[in-house]
Amino acid sequence: MFDPVETLKEFIRHPSISADPQSKEGMRGARDFLVGLLSSMGFEVEVVPTALHPIILARRGGLPEWPHVVIYGHYDVQPPDPLGLWQTPPFEPVERAGRMYGRGAADNKGPLLVHITAVANLLQRTPDLPLRITFMIEGEEEVGSPSFPAFLEKYSGELREADFVLLSDTGIPNEDQVVITCGLRGLMLCDVEVTGAKSDLHSGLHGGVLRNPIQAISELCASLHTPDGRVNVPGFYDDVLEVEDWEKAELAKLGGDAERYRTWLGIPGFHVPPGVSPFEATRFWPTLEFNGIGGGYQGEGSKTVIPSRAFVKISCRLVPNQNPERIRELVYRAIHERMPKDVSYRIVDQHQGTPYVVVPPDRANTPADQPPILAEAFRCVDRAVSEVFGRAPLYLREGGSVPIIADIKRVLGLDSVMLGLFLPEDNLHAPNESFKLSVMAKGIAVSERTLLALARR
Amino acid sequence: MFDPVETLKEFIRHPSISADPQSKEGMRGARDFLVGLLSSMGFEVEVVPTALHPIILARRGGLPEWPHVVIYGHYDVQPPDPLGLWQTPPFEPVERAGRMYGRGAADNKGPLLVHITAVANLLQRTPDLPLRITFMIEGEEEVGSPSFPAFLEKYSGELREADFVLLSDTGIPNEDQVVITCGLRGLMLCDVEVTGAKSDLHSGLHGGVLRNPIQAISELCASLHTPDGRVNVPGFYDDVLEVEDWEKAELAKLGGDAERYRTWLGIPGFHVPPGVSPFEATRFWPTLEFNGIGGGYQGEGSKTVIPSRAFVKISCRLVPNQNPERIRELVYRAIHERMPKDVSYRIVDQHQGTPYVVVPPDRANTPADQPPILAEAFRCVDRAVSEVFGRAPLYLREGGSVPIIADIKRVLGLDSVMLGLFLPEDNLHAPNESFKLSVMAKGIAVSERTLLALARR
Repeated sequence: MFDPVETLKEFIRHPSISADPQSKEGMRGARDFLVGLLSSMGFEVEVVPTALHPIILARRGGLPEWPHVVIYGHYDVQPPDPLGLWQTPPFEPVERAGRMYGRGAADNKGPLLVHITAVANLLQRTPDLPLRITFMIEGEEEVGSPSFPAFLEKYSGELREADFVLLSDTGIPNEDQVVITCGLRGLMLCDVEVTGAKSDLHSGLHGGVLRNPIQAISELCASLHTPDGRVNVPGFYDDVLEVEDWEKAELAKLGGDAERYRTWLGIPGFHVPPGVSPFEATRFWPTLEFNGIGGGYQGEGSKTVIPSRAFVKISCRLVPNQNPERIRELVYRAIHERMPKDVSYRIVDQHQGTPYVVVPPDRANTPADQPPILAEAFRCVDRAVSEVFGRAPLYLREGGSVPIIADIKRVLGLDSVMLGLFLPEDNLHAPNESFKLSVMAKGIAVSERTLLALARR
Repeated sequence: MFDPVETLKEFIRHPSISADPQSKEGMRGARDFLVGLLSSMGFEVEVVPTALHPIILARRGGLPEWPHVVIYGHYDVQPPDPLGLWQTPPFEPVERAGRMYGRGAADNKGPLLVHITAVANLLQRTPDLPLRITFMIEGEEEVGSPSFPAFLEKYSGELREADFVLLSDTGIPNEDQVVITCGLRGLMLCDVEVTGAKSDLHSGLHGGVLRNPIQAISELCASLHTPDGRVNVPGFYDDVLEVEDWEKAELAKLGGDAERYRTWLGIPGFHVPPGVSPFEATRFWPTLEFNGIGGGYQGEGSKTVIPSRAFVKISCRLVPNQNPERIRELVYRAIHERMPKDVSYRIVDQHQGTPYVVVPPDRANTPADQPPILAEAFRCVDRAVSEVFGRAPLYLREGGSVPIIADIKRVLGLDSVMLGLFLPEDNLHAPNESFKLSVMAKGIAVSERTLLALARR
């Protein structure tokens, strides 16, 4: 039986940065690593080519009456920059104070290995486990999963027959309180590029006659929020669903400490819409954020130019019932209306994802119309979490996005059981990402118990 | 006698980027080149060390009754980025269609060589020319001449005895119309750095609870101009002098073609204060520009982070009677008042320079109180330009800044005769900088005639 901690180290060593064309070898290494691992566990592994990074599909078949779980994960990671802020190199995993440090440790290599380890353990102890298992592991999650919908369509005949999807790509507030994520924010991304003069200009000779592209971009960005912290795009909030009472009750049980959160973030103060707490803001409300901005001279000292170009990268996080296409229309309309006429500009589409929500059994105000095995899976994971962590899980919507969860629902008709495993301190998408090894061990135990209970239901 | 075109090529080949700590060798190369050249002309050359880049002081003494001209220039150049936009490498000079291409060709290596060549020619033909000449060539002009004021103080005993300064570091509208620059804009530069959370954050997990530093920077920048194109800093225009009638008359003679200028810039429209023409805007009005902005992810595709930091580089161009210290106070006050309280920030001082104005004889409404040799120098250069270019020069203020001109006035009491030589098409501070070789040849003739006439006055 493999050691999950050593296995995680080996997995992290492959720099599988899906956004970086230079990382082809790292992507291949991470893929080969998984193929070897799943093959050694007796799975029939297929590497499905895509336009960008192949998808791994690994099957353990069985009798038609056995439950069929699809376990989702992704082997790609975020770019590691800014590199200078890492205490140890991002692709040289280091165990320190009960944590494994490295890019992808928590997103998603560690949590994916939780389920792989659980399955390996189960199958070693119970080779005839009455459970069909399919691993579906993609390499484009961090670039918006462009190939995933077509893959789902192609394999929908086989995959629609499964009962539900199990995954861990969401968070928990602390090690004592597991959260089963029952909603995810969607995404709508775009870049705006502004061009002024045909080339950079001397700011003395020409300064004063034209609108600087940085000024145009700044004026646009400044227009996209109200002073009280809402998104200032007409119609943006029109389709936002009212929050259900049971959701408010679950969030109340979570009982977050806002002051501790503020201190952890290191900010002088929160900036949330009126009447909304920071914890509600990330889970129940949509956002419009600027992920990057650039233009002109960025080096040391000064260079007195009027830059020819400036750009900003915009992303919206959307909540259930908001439609990314519609939000794209509204945001683009605002940009078109507000951009000054004395500059040129273009908007570049980036990816998008639909928000997702699943109402767990026993939580809905009205009985949910769930397939019995999905409902049973929710009950099994609830019990397993209660036993292993000593406290029942909470059922909460999450601020992050896993756009493929909505795609899976749309194409395959399957809902997802999202077992949260990473902590706020894990620094996802940031320097010094890590995964807590005690959470990893408990996660393995929960996954084992859940799958075993489901097989023996 | 050296060939000025080949000599310019040799000069350009030294990548003397004063802002770049990696360019030490290029700086030394450019300096050694000048030392060799001036020594070969019989000058006594002193290389004056400074904290950053040494200043070259080259003297040709003479009798006390001879006029004494100080010729100023700089051997450093702007950084060449963005490199991708150069048609040929910036430090590999190429002669193409009557122009010499290369970083520094027009700013300031070509125009400096105009005067060096003129002096070399004169001294070869008239070895006993009754004229004292001092070349004063610095290497920090493009980084704000930090060492120059202290150098002036140190050598003020010797340099105060000179009569005036001659230089060519300003522009002309076209090859038929020389401009003698009689005013320069000043400068005030600073960087603003905003910090939000202690590190980059996942925009899903945390988006919606804090003000993004890019948003804070954008809101600040957007607040610094009024919609009608003025600088929106209280008190900013308080000390701006009313434009004199003779200045308006000179500008009218210039007769610029605004539509042609707009097309050359490649912009959809001008953006100037109400009632101000583009040509007045650059010469008579102050500006606040953004020279660079940066923050978050700037690569291909997307990275859904909330960046920890963002910055903007600000520069103000100031007109005569505005005080850079006072403008710094006003701009900083506006930043302090407007920056949102839920982010951290700091302002980093960059360099500054005082605006300058000299009223040429026969142009002022009231007789100017000028030393006779300065007045004679203005008349000599006026005649030389009229003869060589076939048209009298115009006397105009310039949008650019040569902050040391005000320092020279303050420390040495000397005014400057600024013979413009570079064209709008020369792409100063931009990719594909070049210098027109026919202007170079005419400039040499003007400089020769001016210095000879002054010596024989």
